[in-house]
Amino acid sequence: MSLVVTRLSQLFVRTLREDPAEAEVASHRLLVRAGYIRRQAAGIFAWLPLGLRVKARIEQIIREEMTAAGAQEVHFPALMPREPYQATGRWDEYGDLLFRLQDRKGGDYLLAPTHEEAFTLLVKDLYSSYKDLPLTIYQIQDKYRDEARPRAGLLRGREFTMKDAYSFDHTDEGLDRSYQAQRDAYERIFQRLGLEYAIVQADAGAMGGSRSEEFLHPTPVGEDTFVRSEGGYAANVEAYTTTAPEPVPFDGLPEPVVFDSPGTTTIQTLVAHANDVLEGEWTAADTLKNVVLALTHLDGTRELVVVGIPGDRDIDDKRVEVAFAPAEVEPATDADFEANPLLVRGFIGPWSATGPILGEESATGIRYLLDPRVVDGTRWITGANQADRHVHGLVAGRDFTADGFVEAATVRDGDPAPDGSGPVTLARGMEIGHVFQLGRKYAEALGLKVLDENGKLVTVTMGSYGIGVTRILAIIAELSHDEKGLIWPESVAPFDVHVVATGKGDEAFALAERLVADLESARLDVLYDDRPKVSPGVKFGDAELIGVPKLVVVGRGAADGMVELWDRRTGDREVVPFADAVARLTA
Amino acid sequence: MSLVVTRLSQLFVRTLREDPAEAEVASHRLLVRAGYIRRQAAGIFAWLPLGLRVKARIEQIIREEMTAAGAQEVHFPALMPREPYQATGRWDEYGDLLFRLQDRKGGDYLLAPTHEEAFTLLVKDLYSSYKDLPLTIYQIQDKYRDEARPRAGLLRGREFTMKDAYSFDHTDEGLDRSYQAQRDAYERIFQRLGLEYAIVQADAGAMGGSRSEEFLHPTPVGEDTFVRSEGGYAANVEAYTTTAPEPVPFDGLPEPVVFDSPGTTTIQTLVAHANDVLEGEWTAADTLKNVVLALTHLDGTRELVVVGIPGDRDIDDKRVEVAFAPAEVEPATDADFEANPLLVRGFIGPWSATGPILGEESATGIRYLLDPRVVDGTRWITGANQADRHVHGLVAGRDFTADGFVEAATVRDGDPAPDGSGPVTLARGMEIGHVFQLGRKYAEALGLKVLDENGKLVTVTMGSYGIGVTRILAIIAELSHDEKGLIWPESVAPFDVHVVATGKGDEAFALAERLVADLESARLDVLYDDRPKVSPGVKFGDAELIGVPKLVVVGRGAADGMVELWDRRTGDREVVPFADAVARLTA
Repeated sequence: MSLVVTRLSQLFVRTLREDPAEAEVASHRLLVRAGYIRRQAAGIFAWLPLGLRVKARIEQIIREEMTAAGAQEVHFPALMPREPYQATGRWDEYGDLLFRLQDRKGGDYLLAPTHEEAFTLLVKDLYSSYKDLPLTIYQIQDKYRDEARPRAGLLRGREFTMKDAYSFDHTDEGLDRSYQAQRDAYERIFQRLGLEYAIVQADAGAMGGSRSEEFLHPTPVGEDTFVRSEGGYAANVEAYTTTAPEPVPFDGLPEPVVFDSPGTTTIQTLVAHANDVLEGEWTAADTLKNVVLALTHLDGTRELVVVGIPGDRDIDDKRVEVAFAPAEVEPATDADFEANPLLVRGFIGPWSATGPILGEESATGIRYLLDPRVVDGTRWITGANQADRHVHGLVAGRDFTADGFVEAATVRDGDPAPDGSGPVTLARGMEIGHVFQLGRKYAEALGLKVLDENGKLVTVTMGSYGIGVTRILAIIAELSHDEKGLIWPESVAPFDVHVVATGKGDEAFALAERLVADLESARLDVLYDDRPKVSPGVKFGDAELIGVPKLVVVGRGAADGMVELWDRRTGDREVVPFADAVARLTA
Repeated sequence: MSLVVTRLSQLFVRTLREDPAEAEVASHRLLVRAGYIRRQAAGIFAWLPLGLRVKARIEQIIREEMTAAGAQEVHFPALMPREPYQATGRWDEYGDLLFRLQDRKGGDYLLAPTHEEAFTLLVKDLYSSYKDLPLTIYQIQDKYRDEARPRAGLLRGREFTMKDAYSFDHTDEGLDRSYQAQRDAYERIFQRLGLEYAIVQADAGAMGGSRSEEFLHPTPVGEDTFVRSEGGYAANVEAYTTTAPEPVPFDGLPEPVVFDSPGTTTIQTLVAHANDVLEGEWTAADTLKNVVLALTHLDGTRELVVVGIPGDRDIDDKRVEVAFAPAEVEPATDADFEANPLLVRGFIGPWSATGPILGEESATGIRYLLDPRVVDGTRWITGANQADRHVHGLVAGRDFTADGFVEAATVRDGDPAPDGSGPVTLARGMEIGHVFQLGRKYAEALGLKVLDENGKLVTVTMGSYGIGVTRILAIIAELSHDEKGLIWPESVAPFDVHVVATGKGDEAFALAERLVADLESARLDVLYDDRPKVSPGVKFGDAELIGVPKLVVVGRGAADGMVELWDRRTGDREVVPFADAVARLTA
């Protein structure tokens, strides 16, 4: 950023009165309309001068905090060879998300979605002793993901700028310290950016590793759901773990009874029917819903599993995705049911190694997994694995057992926090940062070892820390706007001050020139609307759209040496003498 | 770059005593050994903290001069869709140099080697009136070319950083002004970088357009050959144009005579034979050498042409490449000769629409092109298009004519400059910048028009201006080193001062700490070798390898408040009092 006054008559920008057709969210709409970005392809954008200035300011804040946290900047190419990603399995694991290509000699390359492998190999190349550690290195770099549905402008693009940092330690305690240093730096970054955040436990997912936290910006339009308790627990729903109740004794419980239940293929119809034909009052919570999922494993094999959850909950797509990762999960298809006639759709019950309970005996190889709430001694109304028949009084641990438990069911307001800190409530947020302990997965796969204090080779333990620069820019825009346009926080505004000269005579323009010269001398970045034949209305409209928070209008009062200070956020306007304006803006 | 003292004990670097196996040139060898860059794949490098600092300083100089020249910074993605490159034909023209890939939906993309199309479309998107022009916009961005033989480290990589600027005007005069502004900025940039340069006329080549100049750094190891005259002419050999001599009258010249010349398939054997069997003294300059070239046109068709040049010159591969662009040129193959028996290898003479002169009449469709020196009235010894026979006294314009002229022959010391400024001499250089007038080629292909002063739609005329950032960094390293390591010019050095503390006691380290604190207060970027148990020899070796031009050694003299200033370039060392050192370094 050089400190030369930018004249709007020269600035490469064109503001649009109309919303772009493809824009779904305010940030996208306004960043395009105000001339910050332009679409090049789905999820791929060019940056105009205004956008580049905001991006540079965000990057500068991140760089300062990284330096303060002892991290050093490096830079990797976007185009990376296949081999390191092959060694860690991610060449395949990434699936369609990865842009792959070949060079003229047929060598396989990718556009890196993240650089764990490259950083690991670089450290292996340079360092060999525990004395070289701890080390945290980072880059601010353009990354690529071939999203199936790029959308919401910069919020989910296929090219995006990230700060990704990686820490290297030879002990677990060292990793904890490096992790904490990045976590603290992230807090300072978001505070300086004026971005509210919640730090929530996250599942490490396909990246492997142990401790993992996300920084979420709480907003009702966020894509991520998280839960928090008043006692301080916070976690992504994917990371929420169900607290299993104590098992109850089942001695003396009556035997299960199969009953006819024609057409009751939904929980709703089943409950209604149960209340008709069985004694007692029944709700969905008394039923056990069995859902068939199809897993596609990394080696391409397809496996069906039956998952049993309380009937008052649903399968949570994100939670099963994490639970079964790296396999891909989808509902069983018609073809799956046709190929497995023992799966009687609508009437599926518990399952075992010898086939469906109560149904025909047959070793199908289909695993049966249960929600952790289905503890021994609980009694259920559930499918009898026969068409138009259910069973009631089926007791877990006596009449059926599972091959394992799985976190597959939805989380609800009021569910207990796993740390005992009380009931949780659900909220939505947007991910703005992610810190996590990779542990030794990458170092092991790529052979990164150092000599420790005793001259023994030990595998290095790593952390990975990401902030989406372009995503943060979009979120700030999303948060800071009104119906007229953008309203940037001062810390990231493209300019410190926007000076608007209006009126027909030369007086206002002459005074405005003096003002911008004074502001420039005070090392402020100034946008000066010097356009001679543009109406005040158009100039004000552009100023409101562009969103520099501090405005000065030099117009009618210029003859008397007066200018108008205008606060874009509050809308407050105040006429003050020229010298006061300079003093207040440069204070 | 933040102003925090960098301690060598913490810096992510490892200097190497051995040259990397693959390094061919000094810059590559030293940048790797001193810990500036690391290879990731052929022609693809990662940047370590030291390298990134030098790169950032070069970019900062370029940014300042671009801003001073009125150019505005934007940023395009590296990943670009096929369509605009298809519209201008470059999707195909680039051939194997282009990294191409597909997204998950089968859409075609490329990694941009340059962004003319994207800039053109962006201006079309934003602007519609001559009032918006002139406009010059630029980016500093990572580009990709799939070089057949990436080599010499950063000098010819497959990923490289470029500053590419594009100007937009609605008149030719405007383009001239925009071109001159960038050309002037380039001169200032190279002056600030301390890089000697020659500005030479260049052929616009595949890019189309009119005026085109290259900035070459003159060096015997350069890949480009250029010519210059004392009178101020300078051109790339590809752009050199031959001055045709005046035609001479051929009335009364004797008829050509065919003579036997068995086995004389080279100019050398032909001249020896001619001096044996013909009257007079003959040299290679009296012979006309006819060379068969095979052109592969963009549509894939293959065409043979015969090119006649004076026998004392050779075909210049780069000049024919430009002369026949965008067709690809190679020597005719054995298969070509077999398929065209009228081409009698070793005895080929001039050619015409009705077949080889003196040979069998046959409309072969093979074009005959001549060097511009073969003007009417010149007499030649040349092939008779029959095995073992040549002809002498064959007169251009009387006995044969050409289908056209072509700049195919080598240029030599002493050839006349086309502008009449005297004889030229050949020199070698490395391209460090390129400015050229694209004209209306891209604007026409992509429909970029604006309304002119009369309300008429006119096609915009463009210029394109490139500097290779990473290439310049390598060239500076190539120029500025000795056998011990790098020696950076102050303008781009990774640090302003490198402070080395030596000795066993605490005194030197304590004084060094005071020194770096004072230098930091003066806003200097300091590298401080604070490593406690490293020998002075290793520290000095590292300092010489890393190449910060100003060094301070704080050692034995510390007890007396003395430090040693060390000029890395000259090797001069001077012991001075602490306060003087601070004063001189911060002067």
